[in-house]
Amino acid sequence: MTTLELTTPALLVDARALQHNLATMAAALPGARLRPHVKAHKCVALARLQAAQGHRGFTCATIREMEGLAAAGLGDDLLLANEVLDATRLGRLDARVTVAVDSPETIAAAARGGVREVLIDVNVGLPRCGCAPADAGRLADLARRSGLGVRGVMGYEGHVVGLDDRALRVAKTAESMELLRAAHREVGGELVSAGGTGTYDVNTWATEIQAGSYALMDTAYARLGLPFRQALSVLATVISVSAGYAVADCGLKALGMDHGNPAIAGTKVWFCSDEHVTFGTGDEAAIAVEGEAPDAPKDGSALRAGDRIRVWPAHVDPTMAYHERALVVSGPQVVETWPIDLRGW
Amino acid sequence: MTTLELTTPALLVDARALQHNLATMAAALPGARLRPHVKAHKCVALARLQAAQGHRGFTCATIREMEGLAAAGLGDDLLLANEVLDATRLGRLDARVTVAVDSPETIAAAARGGVREVLIDVNVGLPRCGCAPADAGRLADLARRSGLGVRGVMGYEGHVVGLDDRALRVAKTAESMELLRAAHREVGGELVSAGGTGTYDVNTWATEIQAGSYALMDTAYARLGLPFRQALSVLATVISVSAGYAVADCGLKALGMDHGNPAIAGTKVWFCSDEHVTFGTGDEAAIAVEGEAPDAPKDGSALRAGDRIRVWPAHVDPTMAYHERALVVSGPQVVETWPIDLRGW
Repeated sequence: MTTLELTTPALLVDARALQHNLATMAAALPGARLRPHVKAHKCVALARLQAAQGHRGFTCATIREMEGLAAAGLGDDLLLANEVLDATRLGRLDARVTVAVDSPETIAAAARGGVREVLIDVNVGLPRCGCAPADAGRLADLARRSGLGVRGVMGYEGHVVGLDDRALRVAKTAESMELLRAAHREVGGELVSAGGTGTYDVNTWATEIQAGSYALMDTAYARLGLPFRQALSVLATVISVSAGYAVADCGLKALGMDHGNPAIAGTKVWFCSDEHVTFGTGDEAAIAVEGEAPDAPKDGSALRAGDRIRVWPAHVDPTMAYHERALVVSGPQVVETWPIDLRGW
Repeated sequence: MTTLELTTPALLVDARALQHNLATMAAALPGARLRPHVKAHKCVALARLQAAQGHRGFTCATIREMEGLAAAGLGDDLLLANEVLDATRLGRLDARVTVAVDSPETIAAAARGGVREVLIDVNVGLPRCGCAPADAGRLADLARRSGLGVRGVMGYEGHVVGLDDRALRVAKTAESMELLRAAHREVGGELVSAGGTGTYDVNTWATEIQAGSYALMDTAYARLGLPFRQALSVLATVISVSAGYAVADCGLKALGMDHGNPAIAGTKVWFCSDEHVTFGTGDEAAIAVEGEAPDAPKDGSALRAGDRIRVWPAHVDPTMAYHERALVVSGPQVVETWPIDLRGW
């Protein structure tokens, strides 16, 4: 099947770009140096490729993601990098399960739910979860007294990963990791888990990096000049053409919108509606049309209803979460269909 | 079951607010004067309630929505208010099917796909789909020559529905409907289909109004002072508490984010992450906690991990599209579970 036969909107994963990204990351952070974050793709098939690269531990954001990986036989070492107040579903998993804790309540929930191991989640600058660094040791003691194994600390420098200026990313990551290492000295354990795609090569203090977006990428991360390629797009059909603009059938229910509008190469996106993207066709618009020579984009004024184009999401994670499946493509050929099977909670 | 027993995040529909909204709209626009837009909820169970109010025709944005309503026996009069280039799935439906067309290509697709009736979609000011008003008559002729029944015109004043100033909404709607009525004179047919929740009582020119958001509402529409109540919230559990802020487990994968952050009554939302909302607990925050007296909100500093709160989406449509199900609640009691069964394409 080719992309011309797909129902649109359709989520496309470029096989070659994905393979490049997986190999590039595995070379930089081999094996357990990377704990891929599956929240970025919510897809067991993609997690299997990450495991095949040698990364046998995974990071999750939801219990559903943990359950799905365990059921798929990918449960060697699963970290729920998020606090939960009811850990009973985690306690039932046939997997090595570690959960983040940052309070007496979340420690009690882990113990009560039958989870055996935890990381102490430390606030390293992002106002989100995580205890104050000075409280980490005390919480680790409480966890151990509650019968839990404490594997170490976790601290996400989420306020740093998106900074455009690399020197600033380096400096800010160093500050954050200073806090995390101080907490680690109080907590003990073998793991210092941190980082994301934006700091994968900057954060040299963590023992493992929780990057996820690197596999598929998006326009927000593309600005940082990382060596990863955009592998995720949404195939859309042009359904209406007017003077100066056109509309394709890929709207805000097919795209994560929290980082703003998607991109269409060769033109400017005006706005998204539920099932539409309106984009310019005037001036110097030159738009690649599916099934035609990729290096010969169409002049905007030549675009026609029925033409198919690719729309590039600004944020990969919430885009994946809208789709039931992704089609893996090699050029125009659809080579595989992947269920996005870890959605929901 | 009560809301205290639900896995969070959980999408809640307040039964009383919904009933108020449905009854208020049915009184204002009885029977066929309203063609409810199911894109706002994507839920057959809710569409059945709208049909029970006397609205037997529906508006859809996707073919999947059309298929779902037809399969549910709600196919008396289904309008796909959107252009498609492949209408074969529509042609197979056991339902009365009308599709919007705005070009020779979309007319040809309707005829080729076995659809029998169309509306001529006219641009009335929103740069999206719709032909120029002057082209409507010519397209209607082409549709009739192609063997299609032309039921009238459609024109969505989407640039008007969200305007805060009611007088401006009235004036701008009048302008848009002037264009649509001019097109209608050239096209003929019994239908002039237009409008949305923001213009439901302002647009007196259309023969039918395509409102959808009125049933569940959101914080964006709430600003307009309409007589509809917010019926849709996301139940979330507080998972982390720090000095001045707390975090609940309802993030941007559980919320439509294109209209901005959600709201939490009694405090200010700082930002959303994939599975988190960070909000203020300092100053004068007073936050209603689930299972406690609703008129006695907790002081922010008294909030604890494990407390449950309600988060109010800024945009109902893309919020519904993230969830597998909605729980209908009457106070703390869960009275029904509705699958969000019209998601995807």
